[in-house]
Amino acid sequence: MTPLPTFSDVVAAAERIRGHAHQTPVLRSSTLDQRLAAQVFFKCENFQRMGAFKFRGAFNALSRFDAAQIQAGVIAFSSGNHAQAIALSAQLLGIPAVILMPQDAPQAKIDATRGYGGDVILFDRFQQDREVLTREIAAQRGMTLIPPFDHPDVIAGQGTAAKELFGEVGELDYLFVCMGGGGLLSGCALAARALSPRCQVIGVEPEAGNDGQQSFRSGAIVRIPTPKTIADGAQTQALSEMTFAIVRRDVQDILTVTDAQLVEGMRFFAERMKMIVEPTGCLAFAGAVHGGLPIASKRVGVIVSGGNVDLQRFGKLVGDAP
Amino acid sequence: MTPLPTFSDVVAAAERIRGHAHQTPVLRSSTLDQRLAAQVFFKCENFQRMGAFKFRGAFNALSRFDAAQIQAGVIAFSSGNHAQAIALSAQLLGIPAVILMPQDAPQAKIDATRGYGGDVILFDRFQQDREVLTREIAAQRGMTLIPPFDHPDVIAGQGTAAKELFGEVGELDYLFVCMGGGGLLSGCALAARALSPRCQVIGVEPEAGNDGQQSFRSGAIVRIPTPKTIADGAQTQALSEMTFAIVRRDVQDILTVTDAQLVEGMRFFAERMKMIVEPTGCLAFAGAVHGGLPIASKRVGVIVSGGNVDLQRFGKLVGDAP
Repeated sequence: MTPLPTFSDVVAAAERIRGHAHQTPVLRSSTLDQRLAAQVFFKCENFQRMGAFKFRGAFNALSRFDAAQIQAGVIAFSSGNHAQAIALSAQLLGIPAVILMPQDAPQAKIDATRGYGGDVILFDRFQQDREVLTREIAAQRGMTLIPPFDHPDVIAGQGTAAKELFGEVGELDYLFVCMGGGGLLSGCALAARALSPRCQVIGVEPEAGNDGQQSFRSGAIVRIPTPKTIADGAQTQALSEMTFAIVRRDVQDILTVTDAQLVEGMRFFAERMKMIVEPTGCLAFAGAVHGGLPIASKRVGVIVSGGNVDLQRFGKLVGDAP
Repeated sequence: MTPLPTFSDVVAAAERIRGHAHQTPVLRSSTLDQRLAAQVFFKCENFQRMGAFKFRGAFNALSRFDAAQIQAGVIAFSSGNHAQAIALSAQLLGIPAVILMPQDAPQAKIDATRGYGGDVILFDRFQQDREVLTREIAAQRGMTLIPPFDHPDVIAGQGTAAKELFGEVGELDYLFVCMGGGGLLSGCALAARALSPRCQVIGVEPEAGNDGQQSFRSGAIVRIPTPKTIADGAQTQALSEMTFAIVRRDVQDILTVTDAQLVEGMRFFAERMKMIVEPTGCLAFAGAVHGGLPIASKRVGVIVSGGNVDLQRFGKLVGDAP
């Protein structure tokens, strides 16, 4: 197995992305702090380039390409933020990029990925296996595949979000992080272990897609059918060996939250904090509020992972009376 | 006439609000910078406490109350952000607050003001003159009236927004600021003159409410009927003597923008920057984009003044296809 990334890799990633990724702001809400009797620090990756933390890992991975890899290009499959992250990073680094997207992906996402210069190849997800297809194209063209989370450079890149948070606010008692494939969670856990050793790192996933919680509790990776949840960034079926190894070692617990709790979070962020957060981006916050952990009087970090949600869908989710 | 506030007053205000107001983040958009071939720095006062810059001026003014004023309390009339700013500042400082609001003000704003502990008195704006009524109550109860812009401590407090911006990003070529009664604009102009003397300070108001532009160009305060515009924070009829004196001296031009350009701005902020900005908060940005000034290759500051917009209204304005 590839060696697991370490905190030194997170530090090196932070150097590579400096001046390319935004150092996103840490925002607070006095109203919320009063309500929870805690100090909550939101690390706002919805204000990251292309609207999500994914840019960190993608840019870090692509920055390490050698001359041959740069010439042959990068390939990725994603219908979500990873697609845009790879396309934008490749554009900035002058690397050709092919992105495989399902032909029924939202047109806005296809357009956004093309807008960043990505060569989008559409496939029929009912007829074709995207992983097989990707590997075929990668082999034919000599392209390097960068997966959305199962890669040490991607994990190390995502960890820079927590590194920045600790750098700005100091040590924390809790750090809540959303969890799909576990890339952000494991990267952030590496940073937490080094920078705030007593911090409890808590992963949060949708109730309908609790493969991570099952895996964590059983000690072996559990695979589930693609879950039905509004948290479209966390519709993964399983952790990878690499993310699971870090999660088991460095994460203290995995919680689940309901879709209704995610909508409540979106509404809170919009009404009280004036920001647009995608459903997946509300996982960590919902876990902090509804997860039952004793956060009162504690210093609590919450990673807000992204803000890429269609505005009409956003309006429907938050604009209607609860 | 009361002496005009100076930059020293802005510096003193910054000390008073420290630890009470948020130091709001300065955000950027690479996409926008590319499109305009400029460097644009957004000072995000929509992330200020109670959702708008108004907290700065209100808290500064109330911090200067003496013991007798604190005991008797503060009174203000406003249907908008000034009401919430006074109510919250008074609550934090332990000062009783009476806020006069029109009885047809949105229930959400009345509730928010009461939520901050303000004693809301509703009046019939077709039958009663709010200024007369306010002065009557102020006199009866010995309360101090804090107007929304015509006050040196309010102006100095608002100027701290620009002071923070220059402190973070250094000198600028242009600073665009929205303009209703001119409190934010004149305060920011004081900061600009001291911290970035060659910066062109530009006020931006709604086309339908161009009293400021008319006043600026004619050299005398022009009063207009209450303008019809979606920029509800800029529906003022005239500048005050105090704000006009500073604007004439320290501001380089006043531009106007249309309501359609404000909606375009709201959509840009939502789609590209993942933030909720109220229509008035888009004035400065719309002026930078549509005002015809030669901003290419320049360093441009834009004050995003607030984010208090009803989510259903927000959804209607930005969610519908353009």
